[in-house]
Amino acid sequence: MATSFRNRKAKGSQAERELVKKFWGINWACIRSAGSGSQHYPSPDILVGNGSRRLAIEVKTLSADKKYFSAEEIRGLKYFADKFGAEPWVAVKFQGREWVFLTLEDLEDTGMSKAVSKELAGRRGLSFEELTES
Amino acid sequence: MATSFRNRKAKGSQAERELVKKFWGINWACIRSAGSGSQHYPSPDILVGNGSRRLAIEVKTLSADKKYFSAEEIRGLKYFADKFGAEPWVAVKFQGREWVFLTLEDLEDTGMSKAVSKELAGRRGLSFEELTES
Repeated sequence: MATSFRNRKAKGSQAERELVKKFWGINWACIRSAGSGSQHYPSPDILVGNGSRRLAIEVKTLSADKKYFSAEEIRGLKYFADKFGAEPWVAVKFQGREWVFLTLEDLEDTGMSKAVSKELAGRRGLSFEELTES
Repeated sequence: MATSFRNRKAKGSQAERELVKKFWGINWACIRSAGSGSQHYPSPDILVGNGSRRLAIEVKTLSADKKYFSAEEIRGLKYFADKFGAEPWVAVKFQGREWVFLTLEDLEDTGMSKAVSKELAGRRGLSFEELTES
């Protein structure tokens, strides 16, 4: 059964809120972007800072076994991060697993898009604690 | 006639979009916060960066001759900016005038809130160009 757009959007927002809470939980300031997907300026789903590091993060949580980021999403994330002065990251969560964070270089290049499988996430991804410990 | 909440909110979003456009216009990356007013974590209306500076900005545009920021708004802005690593600013626009930017120290302390009159904005405020030229 196909997931409706409204459902996907709600799930996306819920996942972003979950991450926002995790970052505030370790005292890193974090905001969700209003315009994600509807503005013509690039913006990451969430933007995080702790006074020394800043992370621009694109978030994916759908229940598929492989998460895809469009070329445009990745280009926008890179562009934003570069202009703003932030590290570009993607955050993915597979059903029943913890959040995993990957750099853009870690993603699999499928030609049209970038992808993360469970296997790739397990092999190259950082946990929340690993991402934020340094 | 009182302005409805929905109207005020729409005007607020429009003003924020106008500022986002101005910052992107000089190549500073800028995002609007999704949660402004509805989250329990503090977040500025917009967050801007150019690789070296980062500005957390609270935005006001209602057509009154004096703009008020609640103690909570200012406390939240300060807190966010401090944790994130950004300069806290307020942006105000009076009808028929250009945007003016003030630091928190520049605001008038009314006891319950902080305020900016046209006179104060003219005397202490920075223009968009002055804010971003350094």
